[in-house]
Amino acid sequence: MIDQKQCEIDIEKVENTKIHDVDFDKLDFGRKFTDHMFYCDFIDDEWQQPKIVPYQAMTIEPSARVLHYGQAVFEGMKAYKDTDGNAFLFRPEDNHRRINISAARLAIPEFPKDYFMKGLTTLIEMDKDWIKSGDGNSLYIRPFVFAIEPAISAAPAEAYRFMIICSPAKAYYTDKVRVIFAEEYSRSANGGVGFAKAAGNYAAQFYPTRLAQQKGYQQVIWTDANTHEYLEEAGTMNIFFRINDTLVTAPISDRILDGITRKSIIQLAEDNNIPVEVRRVKVSEIKEASRNGSLKEIFGTGTAAVISAISAFEHGNEVFEIPDMENAYADLLKKKLVNIQQNQSVDKYGWRYEIK
Amino acid sequence: MIDQKQCEIDIEKVENTKIHDVDFDKLDFGRKFTDHMFYCDFIDDEWQQPKIVPYQAMTIEPSARVLHYGQAVFEGMKAYKDTDGNAFLFRPEDNHRRINISAARLAIPEFPKDYFMKGLTTLIEMDKDWIKSGDGNSLYIRPFVFAIEPAISAAPAEAYRFMIICSPAKAYYTDKVRVIFAEEYSRSANGGVGFAKAAGNYAAQFYPTRLAQQKGYQQVIWTDANTHEYLEEAGTMNIFFRINDTLVTAPISDRILDGITRKSIIQLAEDNNIPVEVRRVKVSEIKEASRNGSLKEIFGTGTAAVISAISAFEHGNEVFEIPDMENAYADLLKKKLVNIQQNQSVDKYGWRYEIK
Ligand SMILES: Cc1ncc(COP(=O)(O)O)c(C=O)c1O
Ligand SMILES: Cc1ncc(COP(=O)(O)O)c(C=O)c1O
Repeated sequence: MIDQKQCEIDIEKVENTKIHDVDFDKLDFGRKFTDHMFYCDFIDDEWQQPKIVPYQAMTIEPSARVLHYGQAVFEGMKAYKDTDGNAFLFRPEDNHRRINISAARLAIPEFPKDYFMKGLTTLIEMDKDWIKSGDGNSLYIRPFVFAIEPAISAAPAEAYRFMIICSPAKAYYTDKVRVIFAEEYSRSANGGVGFAKAAGNYAAQFYPTRLAQQKGYQQVIWTDANTHEYLEEAGTMNIFFRINDTLVTAPISDRILDGITRKSIIQLAEDNNIPVEVRRVKVSEIKEASRNGSLKEIFGTGTAAVISAISAFEHGNEVFEIPDMENAYADLLKKKLVNIQQNQSVDKYGWRYEIK
Repeated sequence: MIDQKQCEIDIEKVENTKIHDVDFDKLDFGRKFTDHMFYCDFIDDEWQQPKIVPYQAMTIEPSARVLHYGQAVFEGMKAYKDTDGNAFLFRPEDNHRRINISAARLAIPEFPKDYFMKGLTTLIEMDKDWIKSGDGNSLYIRPFVFAIEPAISAAPAEAYRFMIICSPAKAYYTDKVRVIFAEEYSRSANGGVGFAKAAGNYAAQFYPTRLAQQKGYQQVIWTDANTHEYLEEAGTMNIFFRINDTLVTAPISDRILDGITRKSIIQLAEDNNIPVEVRRVKVSEIKEASRNGSLKEIFGTGTAAVISAISAFEHGNEVFEIPDMENAYADLLKKKLVNIQQNQSVDKYGWRYEIK
C-alpha cells in the first residue's frame, strides 16, 4: 500500500539475532527488545533520512530538552500472529493520528504518515520472528518522539528524534485488579495535556499509584481534578461500568485519552446489542449501584491489557467488591476483539492490518 | 563546611578548557556549558560514587523510562562573582530541599544533601572562571535527575541519574514583557504536580505559549484550571501585582511552585516597609485595578530573570497597558536582591553562600 519511492529507509541489519537468548515463556513486560529499531531525526525544519539499525543504546547530550522539560510523546500498539504465521497490526493509522495529536499539544512537529507506516511495517517485517502466535502473545510496539536539541531554555526544541522499538509481550495483567478511586491526587486538568500521550502524564501518576499499591490496590481510577466526583480513566486504560445490562463510559475530553481499544469496544458492544451510554459517570452512582446490586462489572480497556476486569474498588475508605459473573461482557467483548486482532474471525470493520 | 570524608567525588579534569571559544558578550541562554559536569547514579537501591568529568554526551537506552514517562525533575540556580573574584550561590540549600520535594512527587529517590552540596561547590570551584562579574552576569546551574532504567512498563524506575551542568548566562529577559492571562489552557491541576519542578510541566506549556507569542505576547500567566478566574503563576516565574502601594501575590499550593525568588522578594518587601498580601488574586480584580489606575505594576520573579517587569496583559481580547513608573518596586526590589546575591550589600538573612 505504501509507495516505495515516497520514503526510502536506510537499513542496517544485525549480524546475529538475539532471539535465541530470550525465554518467551518468561517475559517481564517491556524489558526485552527485538533485533532492530527504527529512527528518524528532525533537524533543520525537516525529518531526515529514516533508518533501521540494530537495537542499541544511543548518545544524548545532558542538555537535551527531553531530560529537562519532558517534551516527549509516545504510542503503544501491538502486532499479533495467526496460527499460519501471518502478522497483523490493529488500527495502526489511528496510532499515527493520535501521536500527531499528542505531538501538536506539546509543540512537537508531526511525523509524516508514510514514514510512520513504512517504518512500522518494515521494522515488523524484519523482526517478525519475535511475534509468537497463541493466546495473549504479541509484539508490543512503542513509537515515540522526544526533543534532542541541546539547549536548556524553557522553549520547544528545534531537533527531535522519532523512534520505534518493539518488545515481545505475554498477556499483561492476567488476574483481576483491585483499584482505588482517586480522592486527592489527579491526573490532568481542564485545558491541560491529559488527552495526549505526553510523557509527563505518566510520571505524575507513579507516586499516587505507589500509595494505592501500598494499600493493596494495583491501580488508581482517576476522577476529575476539580470535584473528584466523576470517574475518568485509569493510568493506561479507559474505564467501562456495566450497570444492569448497560455499559457506561466517560466521554473523551481534553483530560481523557481517546483510547483505540475503548472505541473498538464501544463499536463491538453496540453491534452485539449491548446498550452503551457515553456520559459522565459519578462516583456516587457507582457506589450506589454496587450497593443495590446493579453494578455488574467494571473493566479497563487498553492496548497493553486489551480488557482488564476489576474485582473491587475503594472509595472513602470503603471497599466495594464486585462478584464474579457468568457471561461477563468483559470476557465476551475481549474474545470478540482478540479474535479480530489475531485473525480468528471476520473483520467487517477493516481494523486488522496485515503486514506483508 | 562539608565534611570531606562524607562523600568523596571521583574527579577527571579536562585537558584543555573550552572557555576561550566562548564569546561571553554573546550568550544565548542555556546553549554553552562549562568544562565539567557532575553526575551520580542510583542503582541497586543506592546512590553510587559521585563523579565530576569533562562535560560530554552520554549514552542512554532507547527504553530509558525518562524518554517515555517523563520521570525527571530539575532545579535552576545561579552563581555570581563579586568584583574581587569571590563566587557565591544564593540559598542553595533551598534548591536541594525543593528538588527532593519534586522528586518525591514523581517517585524518584531523594538525593542526599551532602552529595548535593559537595557536588555543587566542587564543580563550581573547578569551573569558577566561567562566572563573570558585572551586572546581569552569572553562571546558571542546572541540577536534574532522570530515570535511566531500560524498561517501558509504566512504573517508577529503579535506576536514575542525578546531574549538575552549568551554563554561563547574561541577563535573561532584558526588556519588559507582554503577557496573556490564560483563559482556555492550563498548567496544573489540584492534586497534580504543579508545585514540583517536574519535567512534563514545562513541555505542557510550550504550545499555549507559542500561541501567545503568535499574538505578540512573550508569556502566559496561568490561571486556575477550574475557573480561570484566579491568577497563579507564569511558566518559570511567580507573579506579583502592585495595587496602589501594596504587593499582592498568590499563595503557594499544590499547583504553584514555591519560588525561592518569590519568598526572598516577600521578605525584602516587608523589611522595606512595603505591605505584602499573600492571597488569591482574581483576574477581574486586576482588570478593574488597571481600569481605575490602582494597578501600578506587575512583575514576575524567578532565578533566571530575577525580576521581570510586565508592561501589558491581555484578557478577554482586551489589552491592558501598564504605564512605566518612577521608583518601581520591581527596580527597587531587584536591586536589593541582586546586591545581596552579588555581595554588594550586607546580607542579614544568610542567603549568600560563598564558594571557597
Ligand atoms: C492514559 C491512557 N488511557 C487509555 C489508554 C488506552 O488506549 P488504547 O486503547 O489506545 O491503548 C492508554 C494507553 O494505551 C493510556 O495511556
Ligand atoms: C513554574 C515556576 N514558577 C516559578 C519559578 C521561580 O522559582 P525560583 O524563584 O525558585 O527560581 C520557577 C523556576 O525557576 C518555575 O519553574
